[in-house]
Amino acid sequence: MPDSRRYVITFGCPDRTGIVARISSFLAEVGGWITEAAYYTDPDTGWFFTRQVVKAESIPFDVEELRARFAGVARSLGAESNWRVDDSGERRRMVVLVSKEGHCLYDLLGRVASGELDVDVRAVIGNHDNLADITRAHGIPFHHVPFGSDPEEKQAAFAEVAKLVDEHDPHAVVLARFMQILPAELCEAWEGRAINIHHSFLPSFVGARPYHQAYARGVKLVGATCHYVTADLDAGPIIEQDVIRVDHGDTVADMVRKGRDIEKITLARGLRWHLEGRVLVHGNRTVVF
Amino acid sequence: MPDSRRYVITFGCPDRTGIVARISSFLAEVGGWITEAAYYTDPDTGWFFTRQVVKAESIPFDVEELRARFAGVARSLGAESNWRVDDSGERRRMVVLVSKEGHCLYDLLGRVASGELDVDVRAVIGNHDNLADITRAHGIPFHHVPFGSDPEEKQAAFAEVAKLVDEHDPHAVVLARFMQILPAELCEAWEGRAINIHHSFLPSFVGARPYHQAYARGVKLVGATCHYVTADLDAGPIIEQDVIRVDHGDTVADMVRKGRDIEKITLARGLRWHLEGRVLVHGNRTVVF
Amino acid sequence: MPDSRRYVITFGCPDRTGIVARISSFLAEVGGWITEAAYYTDPDTGWFFTRQVVKAESIPFDVEELRARFAGVARSLGAESNWRVDDSGERRRMVVLVSKEGHCLYDLLGRVASGELDVDVRAVIGNHDNLADITRAHGIPFHHVPFGSDPEEKQAAFAEVAKLVDEHDPHAVVLARFMQILPAELCEAWEGRAINIHHSFLPSFVGARPYHQAYARGVKLVGATCHYVTADLDAGPIIEQDVIRVDHGDTVADMVRKGRDIEKITLARGLRWHLEGRVLVHGNRTVVF
Amino acid sequence: MPDSRRYVITFGCPDRTGIVARISSFLAEVGGWITEAAYYTDPDTGWFFTRQVVKAESIPFDVEELRARFAGVARSLGAESNWRVDDSGERRRMVVLVSKEGHCLYDLLGRVASGELDVDVRAVIGNHDNLADITRAHGIPFHHVPFGSDPEEKQAAFAEVAKLVDEHDPHAVVLARFMQILPAELCEAWEGRAINIHHSFLPSFVGARPYHQAYARGVKLVGATCHYVTADLDAGPIIEQDVIRVDHGDTVADMVRKGRDIEKITLARGLRWHLEGRVLVHGNRTVVF
Repeated sequence: MPDSRRYVITFGCPDRTGIVARISSFLAEVGGWITEAAYYTDPDTGWFFTRQVVKAESIPFDVEELRARFAGVARSLGAESNWRVDDSGERRRMVVLVSKEGHCLYDLLGRVASGELDVDVRAVIGNHDNLADITRAHGIPFHHVPFGSDPEEKQAAFAEVAKLVDEHDPHAVVLARFMQILPAELCEAWEGRAINIHHSFLPSFVGARPYHQAYARGVKLVGATCHYVTADLDAGPIIEQDVIRVDHGDTVADMVRKGRDIEKITLARGLRWHLEGRVLVHGNRTVVF
Repeated sequence: MPDSRRYVITFGCPDRTGIVARISSFLAEVGGWITEAAYYTDPDTGWFFTRQVVKAESIPFDVEELRARFAGVARSLGAESNWRVDDSGERRRMVVLVSKEGHCLYDLLGRVASGELDVDVRAVIGNHDNLADITRAHGIPFHHVPFGSDPEEKQAAFAEVAKLVDEHDPHAVVLARFMQILPAELCEAWEGRAINIHHSFLPSFVGARPYHQAYARGVKLVGATCHYVTADLDAGPIIEQDVIRVDHGDTVADMVRKGRDIEKITLARGLRWHLEGRVLVHGNRTVVF
Repeated sequence: MPDSRRYVITFGCPDRTGIVARISSFLAEVGGWITEAAYYTDPDTGWFFTRQVVKAESIPFDVEELRARFAGVARSLGAESNWRVDDSGERRRMVVLVSKEGHCLYDLLGRVASGELDVDVRAVIGNHDNLADITRAHGIPFHHVPFGSDPEEKQAAFAEVAKLVDEHDPHAVVLARFMQILPAELCEAWEGRAINIHHSFLPSFVGARPYHQAYARGVKLVGATCHYVTADLDAGPIIEQDVIRVDHGDTVADMVRKGRDIEKITLARGLRWHLEGRVLVHGNRTVVF
Repeated sequence: MPDSRRYVITFGCPDRTGIVARISSFLAEVGGWITEAAYYTDPDTGWFFTRQVVKAESIPFDVEELRARFAGVARSLGAESNWRVDDSGERRRMVVLVSKEGHCLYDLLGRVASGELDVDVRAVIGNHDNLADITRAHGIPFHHVPFGSDPEEKQAAFAEVAKLVDEHDPHAVVLARFMQILPAELCEAWEGRAINIHHSFLPSFVGARPYHQAYARGVKLVGATCHYVTADLDAGPIIEQDVIRVDHGDTVADMVRKGRDIEKITLARGLRWHLEGRVLVHGNRTVVF
């Protein structure tokens, strides 16, 4: 986390000569002190991406003015809407959806409590209530929204979840082992903000009970995948993945246990990058600066 | 964690022909159903080690009787004292020592709360009090024992800590980033039970501020080491180690943050193995079955 | 590799009390000095496996006599055919099948030349001839068997390959990036001996051009899988897997390059375990002792 | 490896506003098409680094002219000498120093033969001659320079090595498990070009027999370090490191064998980065773009 206020510019447009010069000259002219800069051009699509971090104090006007001026730069480079200027002074807001398994939630709460993850956890919503106490012990509201088994109950429950989420206009909606499939309209509404942790190394073992699938296939590593949620189950753009070694002596229960550590870390890493504006989606792939 | 009651036999003696036959015949004769068995002979010292797990229900008498009978086997193999029979029905007890940094404590509490780590956390003792609330939120007593800066105050504080620890006769005394050097007499009293997590890949970067040392040396990976505490600082038998990649762009603060994940996992893994009786110390090395 | 002559017993049968006692007592009675012993019971199928290594010099008769006597033990435990006694004095024989890509072959030849991998490479067979020189520089015969494009030519080529392989009765037939799909009859003839290295983390990206598939999916790690060949493409029992990190900046060519290192190591590791009799196949899974 | 001709600019100077703008504007003005760009500012020393890759065909003059013009840019930013413009059209030259252990040499030769590593291996020099045949089988001259045991013989041998190396004016002098300590004057002469692979995770286990040291300490991972050679033994700037897991069952010989795979890969990776101009030395640390 930056210790002083920063503006984070992310930008994408078709590649051509002079983009870096245009953007860096603009920043130089307004006195912007760049603390991080990353560039990438996708050789297949010829699309250019950059992320630049400038010290807020080096810019002699506010973020609104910076956005207005940068809009001109973006326009001149043919990027009408594919850019953003974030202000680290505006704290990120997050809502977490959980089911019964608490390891990812515990992990996130611990990171937030220790100041490692600088985010405002507005609410935790669970379809079971066993994680209410630990959530509230951290001073965070917990909402219990039971999901029935028939489609109508589920639909009503999702409407309730959507209401509870949307009132915070969160930068991230984290499905921390939520185990329910988001309806297409929520995938769309939260596009680029809904982050899931799937307990396999995708694209292996999509869907339910991936550790059971992994055990049956006899793999020698199990993994976890942090990805943006799309309407296509477990097929959204991947932010981060990791694996851990298992062997023939590991039962499904052992795989579940070992996998949890990878799930926690993979989610925390992907979420941090998302909150810091490091993740740019390009088709079904991500650029992580 | 075994889901049904087990007896865990660990045993070491100088190697010779027929040890496995002797032990396994003894177990077969009493009807013991072996669920796990591991063997190792150290080629340098010619010392033999084994760990065997038997279903309690397969043995027609209690653990005391098993110990008494196994003592005869051990004697006949020349191993007077180098063996143990643990009963999974007797829950492991643990006390945790902490300072200000809470990530390892949060992690352990989360594992215990979810049932992943089956241990009775009797108390958490801190030389600061900032981790009191989260500890108590888990229903665990927290004792604040301030450590002064002069030797006498420290000595008094350690005496207080020892008293608070010893009343639980714990199977594990976990230094979860405790940051204080245990006096020699406590190292001895808790030999084979005091477990430390050091925030470097030992033997690199012994002592204070290992991440600063790592940064200065320009290493490309940082690590963590879970080891038994001995009077020789950071030089006790290593139970587990792991590393994570860093690069030139990582500041010391970034290394600290990345390293925390490795510290948590390395400690949790080593502690689990210790509690399950998987770790046998041999000189300054460990056999981990 | 064992530096002195060893007998390696591998054995599997339905689990019951007393198996370890029976086998270890048999070995103790004939004076067998066990240098390695590993046990495993599959909790799902209730099947017991063991691998035991004994010093040849500790047994007062030859391997044929050991086999004859152990057959009695096996019979008494209900394992008619599910066991083997290997003699490290009989050198393992291997044939390697290659196509154009040489990295796995170079790696294997280097390991054999340096004595790291103790195996007699009887022949290398390629459907291209670009790897003939390096093979012959190591004093190993190279056979060029061109594969036509129509089915009849392929069938004739495979018949030729089979003849060249079978005359050596090899312990291992290594498909070192061979890129041709073995016909079902060869899969059967070489069952448990034909070892393939697939350039993905199976079951992801079965079949052709896995790195292209991985790139398209935007994964953050690429992998390799060493497995026994079965008639079901890329679906045989997995011996070993490993992965390496990639990021958005890696093109398919970069993934191919990074993946090669993992392919080489994963194949070498799996092959070593196979040659040392460490791999026991159980359904579609492997026990690796 | 770039598939078409590129100019690679590396540059370092004290950080200030406008450096990126100055360099990128210069490149934009001459029509330079940037294919890769990386930036880094060291927060401790306030030093700025960049590496930029431009397509040669996009620049309307030759590399000499580019160097002359860029010299002006560098001067205007206060960087008299801390920059370089490399031409991928000029093939990198390399000399390899070896002793008896061939695994790193085999690995490098295989990479070069397959075209993976695009470098001109001018010569291999060994203080033993057992690697002469494999070297010559790749069409590369091998020079046997025996090293006596007394200081005078060693000095003469090093003089001979220096002569054989320097006649090629190589971009890289690779100590591929050379096992001899370079005299200070050669460290100086080859500063920033002499690359060593040390068979431990430095700074642990400096000097001789690191695997024996690792075994004695009972570590759970062994590693390898690729670094620039300086007069201070095993203390030069680290380019790359990696580790592999070992356990109590691994003898020193097993550690040596497992470690070799890590040595090979770590050296190959570090060497590639060096040859591609990705490694910038800053004090005793490296920036790897």
